[in-house]
Amino acid sequence: MSKYAMFGKLTAHPGKREELAKMMLESGETLNDMEGCIYYILHAAEEDPDDLWITELWESQEAHAASLKNENVLALIGRCRHLIAGGSAVKIRPLGGKGF
Amino acid sequence: MSKYAMFGKLTAHPGKREELAKMMLESGETLNDMEGCIYYILHAAEEDPDDLWITELWESQEAHAASLKNENVLALIGRCRHLIAGGSAVKIRPLGGKGF
Repeated sequence: MSKYAMFGKLTAHPGKREELAKMMLESGETLNDMEGCIYYILHAAEEDPDDLWITELWESQEAHAASLKNENVLALIGRCRHLIAGGSAVKIRPLGGKGF
Repeated sequence: MSKYAMFGKLTAHPGKREELAKMMLESGETLNDMEGCIYYILHAAEEDPDDLWITELWESQEAHAASLKNENVLALIGRCRHLIAGGSAVKIRPLGGKGF
């Protein structure tokens, strides 16, 4: 089974990035509960005040797909939705490197 | 001192991504030698056949800047240059999450 990686960009409504990031980070239990999640790291874009970037590494694509059906994850998405203006994803296949 | 993170996109000349990735991964010693580098992971974009994405996490911005003056890193860049059509970077500030 191949590992699965993704970059996601979330754009907050103007001025709402900090609130969105705080809400997502406070849901640490939700993140830690996700089976098959190796890492899930939240970043703030330095050059765009409303953008957050998430990097994810999963044991498999199936583990990632299952997380999107997890009720805690769905509840978190629901709580954050009013702060989010849009999003996009870059699908990537991890190859190797330092710390992989 | 704050940690420093970056996403970099490298676009290979058409059909050259595999060769570029192999060259970069075979330079594992160069990567492992970089002081202050926590991780440096190479990924292939699934939806663009010529794009590679690099995610980097450093102990500090200074450590990252110093790596760009390291002679082994400069030599690696020189060896790869003919395979690279272009690149861009997204500057990001890591906030937290699982595995951070």
